[in-house]
Amino acid sequence: MPNVKVLLKQYKAEGRITEDDFAINQSAPVPQEADLKPDEVAYETKFLSVDPYMRGRITGSRDSYVEPFEENEPLDGYGSAVVTASKHSQYKPGDILVSAHLPWVKYGVVNLGSGSSYHGKITKAEGELAKVPLEWHVGVLGMPSYTAWYGLEVIGKPKRGETLVVSAGSGAVGQAVIQFAKSMGLRVVASAGSEEKVKYLKETLKVDEAFNYKTVDSLANALKKACPNGIDLYFDNVQGEFLDAVLLNINVYGRIIACGGISQYESHRHEQYGNKALMMIVARQVRMEGFIILHHYDRYNEFVKDVMERINKGQFHYKMDIAHGLDKGPQILIGVLNGKNFGKAALEV
Amino acid sequence: MPNVKVLLKQYKAEGRITEDDFAINQSAPVPQEADLKPDEVAYETKFLSVDPYMRGRITGSRDSYVEPFEENEPLDGYGSAVVTASKHSQYKPGDILVSAHLPWVKYGVVNLGSGSSYHGKITKAEGELAKVPLEWHVGVLGMPSYTAWYGLEVIGKPKRGETLVVSAGSGAVGQAVIQFAKSMGLRVVASAGSEEKVKYLKETLKVDEAFNYKTVDSLANALKKACPNGIDLYFDNVQGEFLDAVLLNINVYGRIIACGGISQYESHRHEQYGNKALMMIVARQVRMEGFIILHHYDRYNEFVKDVMERINKGQFHYKMDIAHGLDKGPQILIGVLNGKNFGKAALEV
Repeated sequence: MPNVKVLLKQYKAEGRITEDDFAINQSAPVPQEADLKPDEVAYETKFLSVDPYMRGRITGSRDSYVEPFEENEPLDGYGSAVVTASKHSQYKPGDILVSAHLPWVKYGVVNLGSGSSYHGKITKAEGELAKVPLEWHVGVLGMPSYTAWYGLEVIGKPKRGETLVVSAGSGAVGQAVIQFAKSMGLRVVASAGSEEKVKYLKETLKVDEAFNYKTVDSLANALKKACPNGIDLYFDNVQGEFLDAVLLNINVYGRIIACGGISQYESHRHEQYGNKALMMIVARQVRMEGFIILHHYDRYNEFVKDVMERINKGQFHYKMDIAHGLDKGPQILIGVLNGKNFGKAALEV
Repeated sequence: MPNVKVLLKQYKAEGRITEDDFAINQSAPVPQEADLKPDEVAYETKFLSVDPYMRGRITGSRDSYVEPFEENEPLDGYGSAVVTASKHSQYKPGDILVSAHLPWVKYGVVNLGSGSSYHGKITKAEGELAKVPLEWHVGVLGMPSYTAWYGLEVIGKPKRGETLVVSAGSGAVGQAVIQFAKSMGLRVVASAGSEEKVKYLKETLKVDEAFNYKTVDSLANALKKACPNGIDLYFDNVQGEFLDAVLLNINVYGRIIACGGISQYESHRHEQYGNKALMMIVARQVRMEGFIILHHYDRYNEFVKDVMERINKGQFHYKMDIAHGLDKGPQILIGVLNGKNFGKAALEV
C-alpha cells in the first residue's frame, strides 16, 4: 500500500496540457502515527475535485483565478479526507476533513495548529456535513455547485419569468445552475457538447430548450430560436464565441454571470477567440460581472441548508463522473478541459 | 435667409461615413407664423450637439444605442433653440427649447400639444437653465457632461484614493469625467490622441498622468507605468485594444463604466478588434456595466445643481469646439469620429 502523489512537472503558459506535464510519484512513504509532531494530523484522501479552473494554475501566471501550483509539488484543490491519526486535540481518527487546499496525495500529514498556514483552510466537517457520503463534498455540496447557487443569486439577481442561458449545462456548475434557476421560475436554455448530454438536460433536468453547441450551424441563431423573448441572464462558463452569440441576443439590462471561460483556457494566444460584440454591453445596458467563489464562502451554510432541503425532498439531481485511482488524475483533468466528462468530474482516491 | 436642413441619404452599416452620405437642403421654406396650427410652435435652432453615438444611428440597425435616423429625413439630436412664434398657450417667443430630439434644421415647427409625439421630448428651459448661454445646453450642461457625472457616480461607485483611467480624456465626456473624479479624491490617468490634447489634460485639467495613445509603444505598458497601483475604475469611451490593455492592469473588484466604443464604430466587421483579455473579468472579479444616459435623466437636476456650483466657483473647465453653420454638420460629425475635434463638438446653427 504505497503512497501516491500527483505532481506538476513544469508550468505550461498556453496550449493543451498532456500527461507528460505531470509526474506520478508512488515511492513516497506512507506517514506513520509515530512520526506525527504536536498539532499534526495524518489523513487518507478520499475524493478530489477535478475542475477546469486548475488549468489556470498550470500557466504559472498570477492573472488566473488563484495562485499557481508549485512546480515539482503535488497539485491541490477541493477534496475530502479522513483522519487516520492525530496529535491535535480537536481532531481524532475518523474525522472528515474538507478543504479547497488538499494536495493530490493519497496519504498526507498536515499541521492544523493555530500558527499553521493550513489552520482554517483544512477544516472538519461538522453536524449534518459529517454524515453525508464523502463524494458529496466534491459533488452536490462542492465548490461548483455552490458557485452555481452564489453566482445565480448574488451576481445574477434573477426575476421570475426571465430567460436564462447556461453554457456547459451538464457540467459541474451548469447542472446546478439549471435546477436553481428552474425553481426560481426562470425559463432555462442550456447547451452541451454531445447528444447524450443534451438528452440529460432535457429529460432529467427538464430545461425548456437545449442544444448541442458542436452541431448547430450558428450559435447566435440557435440562441435566437431557443430564446424568442431574448436573453436576460447568461451564466457564462465558456466565454469565446458563445459569449458573442449571447450578446447578440441579450435584452436591455441583461446580466452576464462571468464564471469561467473553458473555451479559452487552452488556446494559444494567437489563436484565441477575439470578442467582437462588446458594444452590446453598452447598447443594451448590460452588466457583466466576474466572481471567484473561493472568496465568497460567507454564504456557504445558507447554500448547504437550501441544497440539503432539495435533496431530502428528492428534488435535486447531481450527476457525477468519478474516476478511480489518484494516478488517473492527469488524464481526468485533461478530459475535463476537453469536455470528456459527463457530470461533475472527481477522483476517488 | 433660407431654411437649411441636413438629411441622411441612406444607411451605412459599416465603414467610414463621408459627406456624400448626407444631403444639405437649402430650398425648404422658412415656417411662417401665419401657417401655425393650434399647439404648434415655430423655432430657430441655435446649437446642435455633434456626438459619436450618432454613427450608430446611421447603421440602420436597432442594435445601436438609440433608434436609427430615418433615411431622407433630417438627422436629430441634442440641441437648444429659441421660440420665434407660438400657438401653444405655454410657449411664447423668446422661450428656450432644449431637447434630445431636435432635428438638424435651422427653422422648425413642432406640435407640443399633449397628444404630440414631441410632448415632453422638446421642453422649455426653466429657472436657472433659462439664463445660461445657449451653448451650455450642448456643452457643460449637455448630455456628455451628464453622462460623465452619472456614469462615474452611479455605475462606477468610486472610493477616495482609487485609480481611475479614462480614454478620450479631452473629449466631451472625458474632460468632465476627469474633473468629477479629481474632486472625488481619485487618482486620474487619461489618454488622448495628440500632444496638444495631452498638454490640456495635464495643464488645465490637472490629471495625475496623461499619454498620447497614438505614440506609445504598448498601451498595456503605458497604463502599467501610469498606474503603479493598478486600475480600479475605467471610464471606457473607446473599447477595442484600449479595453484589453486596461483589463491586463485591472485590480480585484475593478469596475468598467462601459459608456462608448468610438474605436469600433466605423470599423468593417472583418477588421474589427477582437477582445482577448475578458478572462480578467473573472480572474479579477470585475464588473463591466453599460448604460445609455437617455434613459437615466431622473438625476439630471441633481447634476445641474452640482455643475452650476462648480461653475459659479470657477472650478469647472469645459472646452468646446464649435463650428459655425448647420451645413458644416456632416463634416464635423465625420471629424468627431476621427478624433479631429478638441473638446466638445457642436454646431452653432
